[in-house]
Amino acid sequence: MIEKLERMAMLFDFYGSLLTEKQQEILSLYYEQDFSLGEIAEEYKVSRQAVHDMLKRGEKTLAEYDNKLGLIKKFTAERQKLADALDLLDHLEAKGEPGLREKIKQVLNEIIEGFYV
Amino acid sequence: MIEKLERMAMLFDFYGSLLTEKQQEILSLYYEQDFSLGEIAEEYKVSRQAVHDMLKRGEKTLAEYDNKLGLIKKFTAERQKLADALDLLDHLEAKGEPGLREKIKQVLNEIIEGFYV
Repeated sequence: MIEKLERMAMLFDFYGSLLTEKQQEILSLYYEQDFSLGEIAEEYKVSRQAVHDMLKRGEKTLAEYDNKLGLIKKFTAERQKLADALDLLDHLEAKGEPGLREKIKQVLNEIIEGFYV
Repeated sequence: MIEKLERMAMLFDFYGSLLTEKQQEILSLYYEQDFSLGEIAEEYKVSRQAVHDMLKRGEKTLAEYDNKLGLIKKFTAERQKLADALDLLDHLEAKGEPGLREKIKQVLNEIIEGFYV
């Protein structure tokens, strides 16, 4: 279940902007703000079943976008490679200009931070 | 004009999979295989104007996806940072384990290659 939640949160993070505004609101409440189905139903004055259906439709749309664009797979591979590069840099003993290694690590970390903007 | 072509080719590369099959075919002929409007019109037995309209519609759709997902901006920033990191690595004099610097460069280059898969 946690894995499913994590995957959905990631899908929402990548492709959420392609959903309708209402879908975005509901998926955000559920996946980002941890509201229950019942709480969302109350908020929108609809049935739990209606909320459930909207979530399912939104999730399906997100999954379809990822089937076509494959960003999650690319992102995961890239993040792993950056982690590898940072790890290797930690094992590299530099001579000469001090701070150069740190500068490189900083640039790579900026890429990782850029993922989450 | 060349800039526009490059930008469209990039948009098509990123978001082309979200177009209909026919739009994909036509944009591929025009932007990737350098067919003229007239040649595509002949191929599909339609008017040049019809091809022109299909291209415009496809381009508009791609631009709308990029407005929402912003992948081109992210990608460009990331590629620039990787180039910076590689450049800095070239200025880093490593001691100790030989080949470690090359290994790091290889990992970073793999990320760059991964962009184009």
